[in-house]
Amino acid sequence: MTDDTVREAAQKKPVTLLGLGAMGTALADAWLTAGHPVTVWNRNPRRAGPLAARGAAVAATAAEAVAAGRLVVLCLLDDDSVDEALAEADLTGRDLVNLTTGTPLRARDRAAWAQARGARFLDGGIMAVPPMIGVPESGGYVFYSGSSGAFEDHRDTLAVPAGTRYVGEDPGFAALHDVALLSAMYGAFSGITHAFALIRREDIDPEEFVPLLVDWLTAMVPAAHTTAARLNSGDHTTGVVSNLAMQVAGSATLVRTAEEQGVDTALLTPYLQLMERLLEEGGHDHEDTARVVDLLTR
Amino acid sequence: MTDDTVREAAQKKPVTLLGLGAMGTALADAWLTAGHPVTVWNRNPRRAGPLAARGAAVAATAAEAVAAGRLVVLCLLDDDSVDEALAEADLTGRDLVNLTTGTPLRARDRAAWAQARGARFLDGGIMAVPPMIGVPESGGYVFYSGSSGAFEDHRDTLAVPAGTRYVGEDPGFAALHDVALLSAMYGAFSGITHAFALIRREDIDPEEFVPLLVDWLTAMVPAAHTTAARLNSGDHTTGVVSNLAMQVAGSATLVRTAEEQGVDTALLTPYLQLMERLLEEGGHDHEDTARVVDLLTR
Repeated sequence: MTDDTVREAAQKKPVTLLGLGAMGTALADAWLTAGHPVTVWNRNPRRAGPLAARGAAVAATAAEAVAAGRLVVLCLLDDDSVDEALAEADLTGRDLVNLTTGTPLRARDRAAWAQARGARFLDGGIMAVPPMIGVPESGGYVFYSGSSGAFEDHRDTLAVPAGTRYVGEDPGFAALHDVALLSAMYGAFSGITHAFALIRREDIDPEEFVPLLVDWLTAMVPAAHTTAARLNSGDHTTGVVSNLAMQVAGSATLVRTAEEQGVDTALLTPYLQLMERLLEEGGHDHEDTARVVDLLTR
Repeated sequence: MTDDTVREAAQKKPVTLLGLGAMGTALADAWLTAGHPVTVWNRNPRRAGPLAARGAAVAATAAEAVAAGRLVVLCLLDDDSVDEALAEADLTGRDLVNLTTGTPLRARDRAAWAQARGARFLDGGIMAVPPMIGVPESGGYVFYSGSSGAFEDHRDTLAVPAGTRYVGEDPGFAALHDVALLSAMYGAFSGITHAFALIRREDIDPEEFVPLLVDWLTAMVPAAHTTAARLNSGDHTTGVVSNLAMQVAGSATLVRTAEEQGVDTALLTPYLQLMERLLEEGGHDHEDTARVVDLLTR
């Protein structure tokens, strides 16, 4: 071995991974491919077989897996599974990275729990599906929040399976960012679904229609920048272009068209009703849609 | 004059425009700027003043404006205003382009009405706000449907204020495309609004959060291509990645997080409930969200 290869091997830090669902398996696979020593554990040990064949150490218990190295990644079914798996483990001096899906509150509780056991804690929110893991060009990434020290110490290792976005010391922020983006996605899906439903019974080819839809939404999504600026400045006045009064007036045509086309308005009306509520309250006619955010958080 | 300039002037066809709200005024202005002879009429004649100063002919009645040229563009308040304005006009040999907002059914009725009066008919749906008119780089455009002959004869003139997209002989299709895209936009706004509401009470700067949100939605919107392909093929099977069963399981975290953050779930739950309804019906676990379109059109 040359000095360089010794150094390179030394840089590939050991990773312990608990939980071998589709996502955990994809993560373990990415670290193995990159040459990291990987120790895995799964409640059902049969799932570890293919990874063992590729060189992963398979621990008999979660506690044994945790003992194998400093960096311990959790990718379990839910928060209760984390309790179960780690009940007997000694977490002293460990860096826990919890990629198990959960709410911000659960992540904060889990961080306090880990700290009380002598571990540093990072929570993660994965913005990718398993086939995107280990494929940098997929654009998949993981939000991390919690111990910045732990993030800095492991950022190169964490960057192996997917991109990393560190969003702050508050351990709840990764889950919050994750949930905010996923929730926003379902909004976009609502709009796309309603649009396809409107043309469904007409002689319009969905595949000829979809480029118009995608181009339009891609052009509209950056309006969120204006919303963010208004939320910061508190200035919601938009004047005569697309103000709330005009948008509410125009929305009648959207509802009537849905009715004409025999389309359920369940996905369309909630937002229109919030705009209407602002008008009914008065004083919002010349404001824009950023004001609707306030209505949700009262 | 050289032959070339004679020919160029001859190419600038006269345009009659009825209705001088913000949009009508912007349209008239764009045609005037491009050198077209423009005749305008508005119920309240005072609004025509600035256009007259720029060279527009101001007709005393709508009938007189209609008599001024073959191409007659309507940009009125609503469909009833079209009836009122054109009650006394002779439409024989005219090409009516109706940019007045309305539903597909109204556009079809109006097309039949126009044809019975000897006019060709195009309906239009404007995908722009007034400041985008006459500004090619704004990306604003107008959907047209109805008489393809009328569209071909006037396409160069119609392309002056904004881009043109001809979407078929059915006079309802322009309004349907317009409404479908606007409805989809409110879906995207719903998602964006909910996401901002989730972070509203946290120490997260909306302007630091928004690039993540915009990038994510911009990456997710093209999923509509898959939806379109599934609607055409009828094959909704997606296997184990992001199938409906997994998405419904994951959606509990989205709802709980909204509750933790004190955010009204009005914009979030309608779509999640439709996914749940599919699971309850059975047989849809391994399908993807394209199936929700069917649920809206039953």
